[in-house]
Amino acid sequence: MGARIDDLAIDTLRFLSVDMVQQANSGHPGMPMGAAATAYTLWTRFLHFDPTDPTWADRDRFVLSGGHGCALLYALLHLTGYDLSLDDLKAFRQWGSRTPGHPEYGHTPGVEATTGPLGQGIANAVGMAIAEASLAARFNRPGHAIVDHYTYAMCGDGDLMEGVSAEAASLAGHLALGKLVVLYDDNHISIEGGTDLAFTEDVCGRFSAYGWHVQRVDDGNDIAAIAAAIEAARAEKSRPSFIAVRTHIGFGSPHKQDTAGAHGEPLGVDEVRLTKDALGWPTEPAFHVPAEALVHFREAVPRGQARHAAWNQAFDAYRDAFRAEAAEFERRMAGQLPDGWDAELPVFESGAAATRETGGIVLNAIAARVPELMGGSADLAPSTKTLVDGAGDFQVGRYDGRNLRFGVREHAMGAVVNGMAYHGGFVPYGSTFLVFSDYMRPPIRLAALGKLHVIHVFTHDSVGLGEDGPTHQPVEHLAALRAIPGAIVMRPADANETVAAWRFAMTSRRHPVLLALSRQKLPVLSPVAYPQLKEGVMRGGYVLAGADGTPDAIAVASGSEVHLALEAREALAAAGVDVRVVSMPSTELFAGQAEEYRAAVMVPGVPVVSAEAGITLGWRTYLGEGTTAVGIDRFGASAPGDTVLRELGITAEHIVAAIRDAIG
Amino acid sequence: MGARIDDLAIDTLRFLSVDMVQQANSGHPGMPMGAAATAYTLWTRFLHFDPTDPTWADRDRFVLSGGHGCALLYALLHLTGYDLSLDDLKAFRQWGSRTPGHPEYGHTPGVEATTGPLGQGIANAVGMAIAEASLAARFNRPGHAIVDHYTYAMCGDGDLMEGVSAEAASLAGHLALGKLVVLYDDNHISIEGGTDLAFTEDVCGRFSAYGWHVQRVDDGNDIAAIAAAIEAARAEKSRPSFIAVRTHIGFGSPHKQDTAGAHGEPLGVDEVRLTKDALGWPTEPAFHVPAEALVHFREAVPRGQARHAAWNQAFDAYRDAFRAEAAEFERRMAGQLPDGWDAELPVFESGAAATRETGGIVLNAIAARVPELMGGSADLAPSTKTLVDGAGDFQVGRYDGRNLRFGVREHAMGAVVNGMAYHGGFVPYGSTFLVFSDYMRPPIRLAALGKLHVIHVFTHDSVGLGEDGPTHQPVEHLAALRAIPGAIVMRPADANETVAAWRFAMTSRRHPVLLALSRQKLPVLSPVAYPQLKEGVMRGGYVLAGADGTPDAIAVASGSEVHLALEAREALAAAGVDVRVVSMPSTELFAGQAEEYRAAVMVPGVPVVSAEAGITLGWRTYLGEGTTAVGIDRFGASAPGDTVLRELGITAEHIVAAIRDAIG
Repeated sequence: MGARIDDLAIDTLRFLSVDMVQQANSGHPGMPMGAAATAYTLWTRFLHFDPTDPTWADRDRFVLSGGHGCALLYALLHLTGYDLSLDDLKAFRQWGSRTPGHPEYGHTPGVEATTGPLGQGIANAVGMAIAEASLAARFNRPGHAIVDHYTYAMCGDGDLMEGVSAEAASLAGHLALGKLVVLYDDNHISIEGGTDLAFTEDVCGRFSAYGWHVQRVDDGNDIAAIAAAIEAARAEKSRPSFIAVRTHIGFGSPHKQDTAGAHGEPLGVDEVRLTKDALGWPTEPAFHVPAEALVHFREAVPRGQARHAAWNQAFDAYRDAFRAEAAEFERRMAGQLPDGWDAELPVFESGAAATRETGGIVLNAIAARVPELMGGSADLAPSTKTLVDGAGDFQVGRYDGRNLRFGVREHAMGAVVNGMAYHGGFVPYGSTFLVFSDYMRPPIRLAALGKLHVIHVFTHDSVGLGEDGPTHQPVEHLAALRAIPGAIVMRPADANETVAAWRFAMTSRRHPVLLALSRQKLPVLSPVAYPQLKEGVMRGGYVLAGADGTPDAIAVASGSEVHLALEAREALAAAGVDVRVVSMPSTELFAGQAEEYRAAVMVPGVPVVSAEAGITLGWRTYLGEGTTAVGIDRFGASAPGDTVLRELGITAEHIVAAIRDAIG
Repeated sequence: MGARIDDLAIDTLRFLSVDMVQQANSGHPGMPMGAAATAYTLWTRFLHFDPTDPTWADRDRFVLSGGHGCALLYALLHLTGYDLSLDDLKAFRQWGSRTPGHPEYGHTPGVEATTGPLGQGIANAVGMAIAEASLAARFNRPGHAIVDHYTYAMCGDGDLMEGVSAEAASLAGHLALGKLVVLYDDNHISIEGGTDLAFTEDVCGRFSAYGWHVQRVDDGNDIAAIAAAIEAARAEKSRPSFIAVRTHIGFGSPHKQDTAGAHGEPLGVDEVRLTKDALGWPTEPAFHVPAEALVHFREAVPRGQARHAAWNQAFDAYRDAFRAEAAEFERRMAGQLPDGWDAELPVFESGAAATRETGGIVLNAIAARVPELMGGSADLAPSTKTLVDGAGDFQVGRYDGRNLRFGVREHAMGAVVNGMAYHGGFVPYGSTFLVFSDYMRPPIRLAALGKLHVIHVFTHDSVGLGEDGPTHQPVEHLAALRAIPGAIVMRPADANETVAAWRFAMTSRRHPVLLALSRQKLPVLSPVAYPQLKEGVMRGGYVLAGADGTPDAIAVASGSEVHLALEAREALAAAGVDVRVVSMPSTELFAGQAEEYRAAVMVPGVPVVSAEAGITLGWRTYLGEGTTAVGIDRFGASAPGDTVLRELGITAEHIVAAIRDAIG
């Protein structure tokens, strides 16, 4: 294979990208033009994939962290033989197309991660590399390396300016993830102009300080140099690798190369023509794919199929030798929970416990049966109670450990667990205080968009946490998380609801589930038997007390306020007022129930009082005329938790008064 | 002054902190015990402050980024003579006290920033150093250095693991902020255990790569070494300085020193006693302040007053020589807008423009009169239209420039503008796409908590942005930002509402104001005259059309949906249906109006249809029985903006249909 076919293939990538953007009259041509040779080298010489089966478990993972360059990715997918047609490319950025404006996981075959919000992809790749290392440690046996693949990410300066990538890179260096390779498309141009406007740090020095293996390639069109660097990166197994490749945004464009103008808008008809002329490309037709280039790219199909077949054979031998392990591997990669996964789930008869404490017990009960439940905390495990006992830490030389130590890196944690979910084989979880969910909203949102099964354990879920004060007290966070389409917040009221909430979290496979757990103790509520409670929690809301007839009022509450609603019911019962108590751990799930069920729980026309130690936005939906949402529409304050709750009106007495007002 | 008084003073800091935490039975003793000598050295030998006037403009700024160590800060404030009594210290973490669990700006004299959420303080300090450099460039004259102070921050490993501090440190290095000094309390312990669990990078190497001047102090009790390092940091004016001071968390505690157990809980009565014994401190009474130590610390009062008086004298000389400049400086530091600040605000008669375009015009019209309006974008200025024309960039050697180039660092941007606001002398602003407000929620929340006057320009405020697709299309963000207590979202409907929204943003001095602006063109709406519109916008919502009598229905909308509501009104008028159109750029402001006003706008009992290209949460508050919120309770999609809006039902036709349903 000579240089001519390489150039032809690289220019095919360039001009398919240019034409896609021009046809859509929208998009980002500059990155594909500059990075085409890097991507070409990686995809044709190193990346292991089977275009005819994008789900092959041991494929290399490729993440385009700078998702705006997706025209390049789509061109690669089409040319190498994925199920993505030239017509799909022509529909770039159009309604209903398979080639949206940024790559979307689950939408386009071969897209391994939803990217676009910068920095996320690098952190996703760290999660994928953790997943690979963990699976390899658990499943590989001497002579049977059934898990043995690399994770590659391509990124730009924007990705590297984002804090989430810094957090993730520091963690990857600490964990010495030797099969992670990040290729930096170092084109010196950002949207506002040259990177000298804002980004003059020594990026390579920074990655060295993180403990990465760092290389530079001076000419981003020198595929021999690029190949040598990737080769060296692959050979370096004890450190993650960072390769800075000096490229030129908009390469080949006479007027736009090396300018911000090449970044985020079509070149324009004239400049497209001039660029094609400059690189010796036919100006017509658009979407020209030289037959020779196509044949060359499509060698990926037999190459990939052969690799995949060889792996299948290796896996068969593994299965013969290690039947149980092979079955577990296949089960995990298929996203199926093991039989009896819930056999050790407890039921609580009485007593009182913080739901974070119960959450820790439940997590351990599940983890004992579910090896793929793997995660950790952003340096708050002693408080969030999320360590798996006896499972060891995932650390260098101990990749069979299951407890991840994320450090104080909430944002990376969110993106890393997404990466583990993208990879497959895990039900990953993270944990921190609820208030710090603010640090990690972008990955939570992307988990919802990508329908990823990830779990976050958010403890210290109200001002009830007390003395740490308003900087640590969530008030708006339940509402703000519920606002994310597809994210499910569950705020259990007691130990048994916590069990049921974890059950939902484990079995709901197409949503991120966010568990909001209390710092303070809550009594075990006994009005309904566990099976009924479990059913109710799975539906998001249910009648906890006062099911019969039409009540005088309904008190609906979540989490730590449910027992207050029960106290209010008892107090009013003495006065002849019949209050139904509805426990609503998940407003989103309840809203998704059939109207008949909802009407049976929240009887229309009955005055409603809501109670939640957070802002009232959202709860007002359920209120009738003249009724009140008992909540906290202000910041909290530093004092013992009981005091704060009382001073801010989160008491049974206040609920009683609100109900009395409501029923007039 | 010998070593004995130093040790006595340092131990006074230690044990006041220990006793505060023990008395509160809550808090973080370990950091104060380990970092006391560092803080003592800084506060007694370098930090310029006047305890009797915490607002002195040219004081050095001190930010305790690891806000959990606030007992140390409160002890310093008390001992050096701020208006914070020993009784205040004894009320640590109690309801209504002046010594909350984390430092709160505006709550305790001498607290320069609200900290606790980690990493924020470092970025705040970067903002303060930018403020100092900018003011110095604008106001200082040869022989008149009226702005000449340092910004110091103390931080821990948690601060340095957070991405926001990485972003800010990279920016500070780029900007060569030579009067910024960060002291790293390097105690090798995080909450989950040793920093070897998750944080083994070469921190000093990383800061060197950012372009910082880096020093190490091996013994955190060696005040001579600490002093020498601070001295050298102050002398290095061309780079920010990072000093890693090796300390021991819980210093002196026989059983807890160098353990995570010293971090976040009281030592316990017995261990307090043992620790006092170990360091030769009287075990009784608690809160012991040796008279000699107090006298020594209180020397800060005459020292600070003398410095302040000298500065006053220098400022008098400056005022004599540069009357206009002095007046401007005083006006800015007092937070007063200049007379005629709004003289160039335009009024638009007709036409159509994206509100981001109009926003850029308005920003420039204000900036021409208001030098303190200073900010920039996270590498999206060409899209957010937030450059001040002809004002130059704030860069090394050009600190008189006003356009900040934040790079792709939204989180740091949020925290940096907070730092500028904390410093005083600025109305700082940031800008990015609305969807990326998720990257910077923590500083927005802290701005609301601290009642900071900061402005964020969030453009591309709906799926109407089009082709970039769901990763870039906000749907839940308006609701999620409105959820933050005290943050004001304004989503103007046209060019004139944009002018009014900016007017609100400039004159509302106790809130962060978040402007949500469209990518797409919107027609200038003419139903009401500008003065009336301005009044309506300031109130958050007003009757735009159909003011007379009781309408058949009310269509309430914000931003780009208001003109659709007007179209719906016109369509229904032809059928004899009288629809009032209410424009509601700010639901929060409207909710704060007197009930009489609200009832006059949103006439009770009249069916309401809301329209906003985002989730319907929040709008349901205004709906009557059977009416509909027209909105988008799902993620968007990649396609031209008009197509996306139409496909997702954001059309006049849909509003018409919803109104018809509502009125039966």
